[in-house]
Amino acid sequence: MIDHIFIADLSGKWKRLQQAMQTTGADGCLLSIDVNLYYLTGRIYNGYFYLAAEGDPWFFVKRPTGLSGQQVTYIRKPEQIKDAFLENGLRMPQKLLLEADELCYNEYVRLQAIFNPAETANATTLLRSLRMIKTPWEIEQLRLSARRHNEVYARVPDCYRPGMTDLDFQCEIEHLMRRNGSIGIFRTFGSNMEIFQGSLLAGDNAAVPSPFDFALGGRGIDASAPIGANGDLLREGMSVMVDMAGNYTAYLTDMTRTFSIGKLPTAAYRAHQASLEIQRETERLARPGTPCADLYHLAAGIAAREGLLPYFMGTGQQARFVGHGIGIQINELPVLTPRSRDVLQAGMAFALEPKFVIPGTGAVGIENSFLVTNAGIEKLTQANEEIINLI
Amino acid sequence: MIDHIFIADLSGKWKRLQQAMQTTGADGCLLSIDVNLYYLTGRIYNGYFYLAAEGDPWFFVKRPTGLSGQQVTYIRKPEQIKDAFLENGLRMPQKLLLEADELCYNEYVRLQAIFNPAETANATTLLRSLRMIKTPWEIEQLRLSARRHNEVYARVPDCYRPGMTDLDFQCEIEHLMRRNGSIGIFRTFGSNMEIFQGSLLAGDNAAVPSPFDFALGGRGIDASAPIGANGDLLREGMSVMVDMAGNYTAYLTDMTRTFSIGKLPTAAYRAHQASLEIQRETERLARPGTPCADLYHLAAGIAAREGLLPYFMGTGQQARFVGHGIGIQINELPVLTPRSRDVLQAGMAFALEPKFVIPGTGAVGIENSFLVTNAGIEKLTQANEEIINLI
Repeated sequence: MIDHIFIADLSGKWKRLQQAMQTTGADGCLLSIDVNLYYLTGRIYNGYFYLAAEGDPWFFVKRPTGLSGQQVTYIRKPEQIKDAFLENGLRMPQKLLLEADELCYNEYVRLQAIFNPAETANATTLLRSLRMIKTPWEIEQLRLSARRHNEVYARVPDCYRPGMTDLDFQCEIEHLMRRNGSIGIFRTFGSNMEIFQGSLLAGDNAAVPSPFDFALGGRGIDASAPIGANGDLLREGMSVMVDMAGNYTAYLTDMTRTFSIGKLPTAAYRAHQASLEIQRETERLARPGTPCADLYHLAAGIAAREGLLPYFMGTGQQARFVGHGIGIQINELPVLTPRSRDVLQAGMAFALEPKFVIPGTGAVGIENSFLVTNAGIEKLTQANEEIINLI
Repeated sequence: MIDHIFIADLSGKWKRLQQAMQTTGADGCLLSIDVNLYYLTGRIYNGYFYLAAEGDPWFFVKRPTGLSGQQVTYIRKPEQIKDAFLENGLRMPQKLLLEADELCYNEYVRLQAIFNPAETANATTLLRSLRMIKTPWEIEQLRLSARRHNEVYARVPDCYRPGMTDLDFQCEIEHLMRRNGSIGIFRTFGSNMEIFQGSLLAGDNAAVPSPFDFALGGRGIDASAPIGANGDLLREGMSVMVDMAGNYTAYLTDMTRTFSIGKLPTAAYRAHQASLEIQRETERLARPGTPCADLYHLAAGIAAREGLLPYFMGTGQQARFVGHGIGIQINELPVLTPRSRDVLQAGMAFALEPKFVIPGTGAVGIENSFLVTNAGIEKLTQANEEIINLI
């Protein structure tokens, strides 16, 4: 069941989860959402992971066949978990943590009926808070993703041919990503977040608002997927913002670079420099203890000073964040918003993405993935940060 | 808000939903899941669609900005829906339908608290049952997807080069798909179903069980995405099963073809012919009124007669279905299982996928998408159905 390369990492995570349960008086935690299973078992299966506040975890598996190991129990339905508890003399939890922001209502109610605990509480909140601080193994995964992300971004200009649409350009980058090890699946938190391999925004399409809680929008190529490239021809004077996923391990890095078709108006270069300045000042300020809200205000302050607030993080619809945690999902905690109460801690990983949308030109700015260290923050994603002219 | 090309189609769907509500005594239905919003509004937005048992629908929108039209109301949070009800003199529903198999527990409970209905019932079940019968517009979308799916499959052999891995081959097909209009996003029903652009299974990797409820599995290239191609070199004597998405509109067609690297053992060709026979017999038998369970038994019966039951729909882990409804999601209703109580009705669309896994060779068989007509069933996906040798 548990791969040997994972065991030291996983034991540490189980211990932290148990400490959190003991602190809050929870007796057990039952998880079944893919990202939480991967986080705590190193694999994805159809079934449940149960950890009591003390003791070893149990793995209740529906599919795939063929898993084995200590406390691995095959079930057809969750009601059989109770049978296994009785057979093995396990204590039924009085306070049970369930994934209240992820499990569908009917599944949650079904699990409640099986365990009939005096109280349930939200495992989603707790797991997202635990996942916020990365372990050494997770940091290594982020570094591996970043390395391949860097290699792909260095070759983005080679994907361009004159006469392409934004979608043509994006398809070539997608292909390069997959050829370079992209796993494909791009995980987000929240039931209303959908995206394919990332987003490429050229010209005024960057100003089109989307339903999703990403930094920018774009019309997309179909009403069923209203995000990103829309099939417009890439024309001289457009900026092209490339924000494609770093899904080269299960841990996602996030990186954006801006390209141009020929020369852009001065305003675009000025706004791009403001983005770089926000990054520089963030690198100077950020360290364990820095409030995430301060990082938002720092960014918005520079945007305001430069007279760029109307273009900051969109125009008609403006995102109210300048960065977000990264991990197994692209939008983990913390979030760099004006109202965040989180403070940076060593082991956090986040993407900083100060972006501007310049009417008539498109989006400019950069995004990089950072690791919070004891001393400050370390940039994981590396590629030329200036606007690169593709022609 | 509502695009003119959709309005006739949507009005008919609203009316069917209202008839179903009137039959079951429901007063209103509040929906927010992407597929249901797309089904009933022709677009995806962040917000809610409300339809009472009588009257016109209301659209409560959080994002994107800029939508307008009759009964479009912007909200920041769902509590404001109640304010809008009071302002507009709308009746609060006593029996409210909510997406109980899709909404997360916390969201469901929040909506319940806002409306405080005497009773809630499951909108997921009802919508899946309505979505089972396709409208003329939806059938046209399936035909468009099928046409492009056919074009791509005709060119699959061109994607092959000697010395490729299964993943290399898949990446080239993915690229061809996107170049031919694939939207990318591949929607499934169920929180534990994840897949990228489809699945390609070569050799014994086809026998590796996966956590997911797809017909076959495959190890995948990472523990976080255990499905499909695993990076093995394509070697002479392997079968290569190509089951890549038909996501060329929001309506998905499903099609599988089998290729070979050189000559396969006789047993593989025999099993493939059994798959073709299952399809022929299904085409002969299936018409409105045919029980879906009969179609499963027909397939399993032919597999048994040919001595192929141990290889039918997998080996170690065998899927207990031979087909499934298709639509906005790849696994809609009906499902062709031994226990299904559904009967075919005109307007249903389903994929039939009798497959066999031959140890030492790989998967063989075909899959096609069918439309149920008044007279029988019509095959939507068209491509050479024999095993095509790639070398």
